[in-house]
Amino acid sequence: MSAEQRGEFALIQQYFASGFPSHTNTRLGVGDDCSLITLPPDYELAQSIDTQVAGIHFPPQAPADLIAQRALRCAVSDLAAMGAEPQGFHLALTLPRADASWLSAFSQGLKAAAGELNIALLGGDTTSGPAVIITIAVQGFVPAEKALTRHTAQVGDDIWVSGVIGASALALPCALENPADRSTKTAAYYFPQPQCALGSRLRDVIHACLDISDGLLQDAGHIARASAVTLSIDGQAIPLPDGITTRDDIMRCISGGDDYQLLFTATASQREQISQLSTTYPGLSRIGQVVKPVTGQPVRLWMHSEEVTLAQHTGYQHF
Amino acid sequence: MSAEQRGEFALIQQYFASGFPSHTNTRLGVGDDCSLITLPPDYELAQSIDTQVAGIHFPPQAPADLIAQRALRCAVSDLAAMGAEPQGFHLALTLPRADASWLSAFSQGLKAAAGELNIALLGGDTTSGPAVIITIAVQGFVPAEKALTRHTAQVGDDIWVSGVIGASALALPCALENPADRSTKTAAYYFPQPQCALGSRLRDVIHACLDISDGLLQDAGHIARASAVTLSIDGQAIPLPDGITTRDDIMRCISGGDDYQLLFTATASQREQISQLSTTYPGLSRIGQVVKPVTGQPVRLWMHSEEVTLAQHTGYQHF
Repeated sequence: MSAEQRGEFALIQQYFASGFPSHTNTRLGVGDDCSLITLPPDYELAQSIDTQVAGIHFPPQAPADLIAQRALRCAVSDLAAMGAEPQGFHLALTLPRADASWLSAFSQGLKAAAGELNIALLGGDTTSGPAVIITIAVQGFVPAEKALTRHTAQVGDDIWVSGVIGASALALPCALENPADRSTKTAAYYFPQPQCALGSRLRDVIHACLDISDGLLQDAGHIARASAVTLSIDGQAIPLPDGITTRDDIMRCISGGDDYQLLFTATASQREQISQLSTTYPGLSRIGQVVKPVTGQPVRLWMHSEEVTLAQHTGYQHF
Repeated sequence: MSAEQRGEFALIQQYFASGFPSHTNTRLGVGDDCSLITLPPDYELAQSIDTQVAGIHFPPQAPADLIAQRALRCAVSDLAAMGAEPQGFHLALTLPRADASWLSAFSQGLKAAAGELNIALLGGDTTSGPAVIITIAVQGFVPAEKALTRHTAQVGDDIWVSGVIGASALALPCALENPADRSTKTAAYYFPQPQCALGSRLRDVIHACLDISDGLLQDAGHIARASAVTLSIDGQAIPLPDGITTRDDIMRCISGGDDYQLLFTATASQREQISQLSTTYPGLSRIGQVVKPVTGQPVRLWMHSEEVTLAQHTGYQHF
């Protein structure tokens, strides 16, 4: 290998040039100044960018393949929230040093996740920096004017979640204590499941939708504010991990982030159609109702018919 | 402002929600899980992702508006290299702390650059981290199958550059010594000019193309390897900043990065058509010829008919 080929270019070539799914709409992938894609007629391109910083979004000592799994899955979840089908992603990877075994493991995890999610690697940028920082720009296709959004909840809508809430928040202490744990105790944290298939099925059925990444309560607030309504949630209807009974544990589950389940609203006339999906999505649950906006209360939470004060349970804040 | 509205969301709202160009193909911009765009019929979407790390790609003490100007301009240059017209970008911003005056200045610089380049802000992610790290994912439209690429240089082609090479490399010491200098001494460094208009005009005229970001010599090597040819460059034909005469200064200009001029190849029959553009692009210069591949020599440089040994002049390496 010549001096010119060493460094950044060789790294990219070695670890990221092959082994990812291909996509029929990709005209040009990794290796030029830009990638090139086409878009099917009557489709829109849904896009999102997501950064994960070592020590903030994942334990710095976590195995690189698990870091990659988590980063790509979290990013793709935004596509599920819009009802879009994954197409491709660009990766910006900042590393303190180019460690071959770390990069090998990272690319293996990334390829495994990309394969499962059927998303192509279109391009990237590798830079040196003070910590491992992973930015992933994902994109997917959605039929024109059919994308799910946050601002379309209507008063009277049912509120639904696609599955169990809080499993990742409960797995977090275990992942922090033992980042290399690959048991079921950390699976919900490292391997969140973007609900892309469900999102696509719900496109013509529901009103507002998002994926829960900042905690159920905070994300419910996002729908509420975007739609100018209040989300009234029945705490006892929320599907929780087995064994959760105390008030503190319940609050931890519904305030913790990283669920990557869908939170959505739909008119009551769709109740039966949505319920029929529960054979495929066993955690799918109706957890409340959209009501007229209550000043200063985008979200109201009820437990045993008593309202719970929410000020301290607003999810993760970066600053 | 309620507790829930503080932090990340308020920051984004305050500094990035308005003041950017809009684009007719944007269906949904900042504020939901994804942005949504459409693509005109018979066009492809060109995309690139670019990271700039404080202390690596720019002086940490540089004014935030200049950091933003430079970051967006460098990113958009990849679109110029493909002959694509800018459409939109997603911004991932990692910051050690949320400093209002820094963010205000950064967003002002970003808006000014976006306005000049006519590119819309489509979405973003703001995270805390150990340093200022800016990742920008840019995209633009290019007519189907007309994009300029690196692998299409042909033996016998002329080699061209779109303008003066080395101005940014010469400005770098001044920017490092006095990051807040806003004089002409740092302009080439902070305000590189993506050659989007020229790239579009050259789409049907030239063969291979890229934008010079790693230094003329290194980037010439990229075309050479992608096209399986050798680029033979006449050092005396390269347009250099005024006053550059010594061999060391010349090597600094053609090895330094950050020019963001286009380097391209074209058949000799296009010589006159390309030369006519020099009224608009005064630095446009023919600097050599594409020749059959010479083993171990993707690029050959000649000065006064003598070949220059290139081993030590290969541009910036991250690792």
